[in-house]
Amino acid sequence: MNAAPLGQPAAPTRGDILAARDRIRPYVRRTPVLDPGAGSLGVEEPLTLKLELLQHMGSFKPRGAFSKMLASEVPDAGVIAASGGNFGLAVAYAARTLGHRAEIFVPSTSPEAKIARVREQGAEVHVIEGYYDDASEAAHERAAATGARWMHPFDQPEVVAGQGTIGIELAEQVPDAETVLVAVGGGGLMGGIAAWFAGDVRVVAVEPASCRCLDAALEAGEPVEVPVAGIAADSLGARRVGDIAFAVARAHVDRVVLVEDDAIREAQRAIWRDLSLVAEPGGAAALAAVRSGAYAPAPGERVVVLLCGSNADPATVTG
Amino acid sequence: MNAAPLGQPAAPTRGDILAARDRIRPYVRRTPVLDPGAGSLGVEEPLTLKLELLQHMGSFKPRGAFSKMLASEVPDAGVIAASGGNFGLAVAYAARTLGHRAEIFVPSTSPEAKIARVREQGAEVHVIEGYYDDASEAAHERAAATGARWMHPFDQPEVVAGQGTIGIELAEQVPDAETVLVAVGGGGLMGGIAAWFAGDVRVVAVEPASCRCLDAALEAGEPVEVPVAGIAADSLGARRVGDIAFAVARAHVDRVVLVEDDAIREAQRAIWRDLSLVAEPGGAAALAAVRSGAYAPAPGERVVVLLCGSNADPATVTG
Repeated sequence: MNAAPLGQPAAPTRGDILAARDRIRPYVRRTPVLDPGAGSLGVEEPLTLKLELLQHMGSFKPRGAFSKMLASEVPDAGVIAASGGNFGLAVAYAARTLGHRAEIFVPSTSPEAKIARVREQGAEVHVIEGYYDDASEAAHERAAATGARWMHPFDQPEVVAGQGTIGIELAEQVPDAETVLVAVGGGGLMGGIAAWFAGDVRVVAVEPASCRCLDAALEAGEPVEVPVAGIAADSLGARRVGDIAFAVARAHVDRVVLVEDDAIREAQRAIWRDLSLVAEPGGAAALAAVRSGAYAPAPGERVVVLLCGSNADPATVTG
Repeated sequence: MNAAPLGQPAAPTRGDILAARDRIRPYVRRTPVLDPGAGSLGVEEPLTLKLELLQHMGSFKPRGAFSKMLASEVPDAGVIAASGGNFGLAVAYAARTLGHRAEIFVPSTSPEAKIARVREQGAEVHVIEGYYDDASEAAHERAAATGARWMHPFDQPEVVAGQGTIGIELAEQVPDAETVLVAVGGGGLMGGIAAWFAGDVRVVAVEPASCRCLDAALEAGEPVEVPVAGIAADSLGARRVGDIAFAVARAHVDRVVLVEDDAIREAQRAIWRDLSLVAEPGGAAALAAVRSGAYAPAPGERVVVLLCGSNADPATVTG
C-alpha cells in the first residue's frame, strides 16, 4: 500500500493515514462538505466543496501539526518551526493544546497581523530579518542548540499523513467522488490526499502559475528550485516541492493545472458573494482551476473542490 | 400530526414539511453541520452548529420563499413582498430562479447595500418613505391592484413549512440532538422547526431582549405588539409574532430565553475569531444564548445551535 517507488522517501500508507486520524481525532474538526448548487460560484456543473477552511486556525495545517506532535517524543524544549503563516499558527495552536512549548521563527516580511496571531497562541515568536530561508536557518540553529523537536511544514511523513486524513473524510462524505482538486504549496496536503486515494480517485494538483514547484519538478524529473511570487505566495509559495509530495505526485497525481492570480482573486470574490465565506488566495486556488477552465470536468463528472484556508483580510475579497 | 391546538391557525404538519422539502429540494442547499470542538466559541461544552448561514442569499429565508412560491399559482403579475432584508432578497432570488416577476417594497430606512442586493436579483424595488409598516401597506395596495401573489415573511403555512425543512435535515444530521436553539424574529423559523420536532427535541427560542415579541405573546396569552430596537432588529425586529408561530410555540417550545445586544456582538466576534465566518446579529443570537448563560445546557446535553444568517458587514465582526 506504500505509494512511493522504491528508493524514494517513504510516502504515508493508508495505514499511516488511518493511524494519524486516530491520533488527531480529538483535536481537529471533521470539516463539512457542501453542494452549493449548479450555477453557484460561476460554475454551471454541480460541485461539492470540502470546507476545510473551517478547520481550527483557518487552514488544514493543524492536522499535520497534531499528527507529527502526537507521534513524536517532545522534549521540555518543546517544538520549533519556521513559518510566517498558517503552519506557524497551527504548530502554536497544537503545542498550546497539548501543553508543549513552541518557538516559531517568522521572517520579518510576514504581515504583522499573522505574527500577532501566532503570539496569541502562546508561542515564543522570533522575528528574523529577511525571508523564509533566513527564518528557517535561524530556527534550525536554535533547534540544534535546544534539542526542540523540529516541525517541517510539509516534508515529514507524519505531517503528510495528517493532511491525508482529509482523504479519509472525503471518502466517507462523498463516496462517489471521481475527482478532487487540491492546491499545492510544498505539497503536504496534496501528498496526503493522493496517498490516501492512491489512484482510486483522480487527484488534480492546482498551482498558481507564479509558484509552480510541483509542475517544475515533474517536468525536471526531480524537485527543483523555482521562483515564487503572486497573491498566493504567502501560503503556496514553496520554492521546492517536498520529496514526499514529489514521490506521491509521480505515482498518483493525475495532472497539475496552473492558475493565474486574476483567476484566484475572482474565485475568492465568488466564494464571498455566493457563500459569505472568506477564502485566502491559496484556499481559493482549487476553485479557480474550475472557474477558469484550467480544469474542465467532463459532463456529469463528480468533482470535489477543496477550500483549504481562510486567513485573508475580508476587505480583499468583498470588493 | 398537526401541531396547533384546535381553533388556532393551522401549523404545518410533518407531512406539510416533508412536502415542502420535496418541492424546494432542487433549489436550496442542504446546509452542513459542524462540531467546532469543546472550548471553541467560548463554550466549554461540545456543541453542534447548523450552518444555515451558508444558504443561498446568506439566510434560511429562501426555504420559505421557494416553498410558498412553488405551492402557489403565480400570476403574470408575479410575487410581491415587503422587506428591507433577508426575506426580500430570498423572494427576489426565488422569483428569478423560477422565472417570475418580483416586486419588493423596502422602507427607506433599509441600508442601501441591502436594497442594492435585492435589485441585483432582478426584482423591481420600490423604496417607500418610512418604516416596515409603511412599506408593507404600500405593498398590499399594489398587490390588490395587480393581483400579484402576496408573500408574507413568516405567517403563511407554506413559508413556515419551508423553514421547517431545517428540522428534517437536523433529524438526519444530528439524530441524537436533545436541544436546538433557534433565533426568533416573527417566528417562522422557530415555528417550522418546532412543528417538525413536535416535542421530540427540545426547541429553545432565543430573542434579543430588545425585540421580544414571542416572549411577550406567551406572557400575554396572545400575540401582542412590542417595541423593537437593538442590533438584531434588522432581521429579528418583528413587532408582533406570527399567529402560526405563536400556536406552535405554545404547543412545542420548551422556553424563550432573552439575550442582550452585547452578548450578540460578542457571539458574532467569537464566530469570526474561531471559524472565520461572518454571522449577522440575528444569525449569532442563538449562540449568544449559550455563551451568555441565558441557556445553560445540562452536563452532556447534546445541543445544536442554528446559525441562520450571514448578511453583515465583515467590519462589524472582526473588531
